[in-house]
Amino acid sequence: MRSLRYFLIFLWSLILLGGCNVREERSPEKQKSGTVLPSWHETATRQAILDYVSTVTDPDSNDFIPEADRIAVFDNDGTLWAEKPIYFQLEFIFDRIRALAPRHPEWKRDKLIQAVLSNDLDRIRKFGGEGIARLMAITQAGMTTEAFRTTVRQWIATARHPVSHRPYSEMVYQPMLELISYLKDRGFKIYIISGGDQDFMRAWAPEAYKIPPEQIIGSRQRLEYRYEKNGKPVLYRMPEIEFLDDEVGKAVAIHQFVGRRPVIAFGNSDGDLQMLEYTRWGKERSLVGFVHHTDASREWAYDRHSAIGKLDKGLDKARRYGWLLIDMKKDWKVIYPWQLN
Amino acid sequence: MRSLRYFLIFLWSLILLGGCNVREERSPEKQKSGTVLPSWHETATRQAILDYVSTVTDPDSNDFIPEADRIAVFDNDGTLWAEKPIYFQLEFIFDRIRALAPRHPEWKRDKLIQAVLSNDLDRIRKFGGEGIARLMAITQAGMTTEAFRTTVRQWIATARHPVSHRPYSEMVYQPMLELISYLKDRGFKIYIISGGDQDFMRAWAPEAYKIPPEQIIGSRQRLEYRYEKNGKPVLYRMPEIEFLDDEVGKAVAIHQFVGRRPVIAFGNSDGDLQMLEYTRWGKERSLVGFVHHTDASREWAYDRHSAIGKLDKGLDKARRYGWLLIDMKKDWKVIYPWQLN
Repeated sequence: MRSLRYFLIFLWSLILLGGCNVREERSPEKQKSGTVLPSWHETATRQAILDYVSTVTDPDSNDFIPEADRIAVFDNDGTLWAEKPIYFQLEFIFDRIRALAPRHPEWKRDKLIQAVLSNDLDRIRKFGGEGIARLMAITQAGMTTEAFRTTVRQWIATARHPVSHRPYSEMVYQPMLELISYLKDRGFKIYIISGGDQDFMRAWAPEAYKIPPEQIIGSRQRLEYRYEKNGKPVLYRMPEIEFLDDEVGKAVAIHQFVGRRPVIAFGNSDGDLQMLEYTRWGKERSLVGFVHHTDASREWAYDRHSAIGKLDKGLDKARRYGWLLIDMKKDWKVIYPWQLN
Repeated sequence: MRSLRYFLIFLWSLILLGGCNVREERSPEKQKSGTVLPSWHETATRQAILDYVSTVTDPDSNDFIPEADRIAVFDNDGTLWAEKPIYFQLEFIFDRIRALAPRHPEWKRDKLIQAVLSNDLDRIRKFGGEGIARLMAITQAGMTTEAFRTTVRQWIATARHPVSHRPYSEMVYQPMLELISYLKDRGFKIYIISGGDQDFMRAWAPEAYKIPPEQIIGSRQRLEYRYEKNGKPVLYRMPEIEFLDDEVGKAVAIHQFVGRRPVIAFGNSDGDLQMLEYTRWGKERSLVGFVHHTDASREWAYDRHSAIGKLDKGLDKARRYGWLLIDMKKDWKVIYPWQLN
């Protein structure tokens, strides 16, 4: 068990810790008219989505897909909301350390904690996977699932993104919200398949995306069944990652939680590659693609050389097999909901 | 990993291997008139279900539950379909051994396999958890999830129950089918939380119960992501139980797959106790209960001393806390669907 545990922590630390790109100022654009996908420019990308959906929902088409099989899966970080300068869940972990510090005078001599308190990402990185595991154990374990949910909800309601100074729940991509809504209207069932902690995701994502908690899948902490003093049974979050929902894990999670191959899959990084492949090889006609971060002025521009959201092998595969590449700069009129007005 | 693996196999073998009760002849009764739950006698049990549902679905009631929170969970073996003389999944495993035997001349010197081929349950039991693990590895692993699904579907279409000589999919309890249908009509979302293998369940249960695969949760085999020769990615079933969906596991699975405490929970054995407790302590008014096997003439009569479907601690708790006890003999007009006519 130890070796598996450290392997998972190591993998997660690779995901969480990464370089941070410089972000330039955004210049919001106004929304223009349109019935569906109004924040999308009338490009070939938008047309490919519309064509696919109209074909597979047309009962007279050879590619018709019955509603029960209309499953669409989306990655979260970098696909539905931003992931720069660092994964927002990592901001949560750091914020929790800051909030808990006054109650822990012994942390004054703790170099890892001090690195967090001085916001020194380079020094935090030097502690590697073990460091992240310790920070996760302090901030995301040792409490019931219900207490953790309350903590995340308080954080999401009050924390602000370091660059936009907006709540993190507003750092969602308006065009992707419209895509989700459009697909739901056409009888698709939407799942989020995220590398983030499942309970962290479920605490805020149902409101942000209008998707019920059971359709939000993520990495899982080991849970222990315990009784509170009054006899109430609770699930206690243990400091151990039970399942890492990334790369091949995403295909496994889709099988376990959805039970069918999806027909639509969108991601933005190599961690989503297997999810897209797995979808692509289903028996129905499929639509798979990456959100490509091309907009250095309104969001961030990164792909092959980014530590967070690295898109390298995926970019090659997408170009080779003609997968959709959503070009944020060219395909989207606005990035965030607040830019609509 | 080894120790966890053997612990899980040991636990599952305890569930799968058990004594078998003698079953007497059934005397089917005709269905009488009635609008909802027509195969239920007009007893206090039926009334308690009707009263609960009408209260929590009444917007003017203090106990009103909005549709999003109307989650009902059901165990499968012994709750929705029969589990005697042995768990049906164990029959599947034995049938697979029989089907594969002609291709394995080397099995002639294998004492465990020979015990299966001669249908000698006592001798199989002597091989303990290791024996069951071997039989499971032979019959339920070493193939893709898609191949396993096909195998299970062929089996369920052709195999017959040793006593009734009916297909296993007809060994479902008609009154429970009516309860599921009634709850669905009232806006409840139904989940099956079974100790059986999740892929085994999902191969037949969606048709039998009219419940989509993603709402059917069970024990899970470890899956590996592989590529077939043509490049198609598949999930390969490994000979290792990753998650045992029994006892505390049922509460954990409910959190992971449903994300909320249910408001209705039905089981039939001590393996369902934590699922019922976990439901009972939710913030909404709840209805929890056991199907009590009291009908030796039409089904089987067993509780505290049965190796399969043992209901001992659960019976005490149910009586102490006033949980519903569905008395199969007194509460149900018929047991199986074919007895309706």
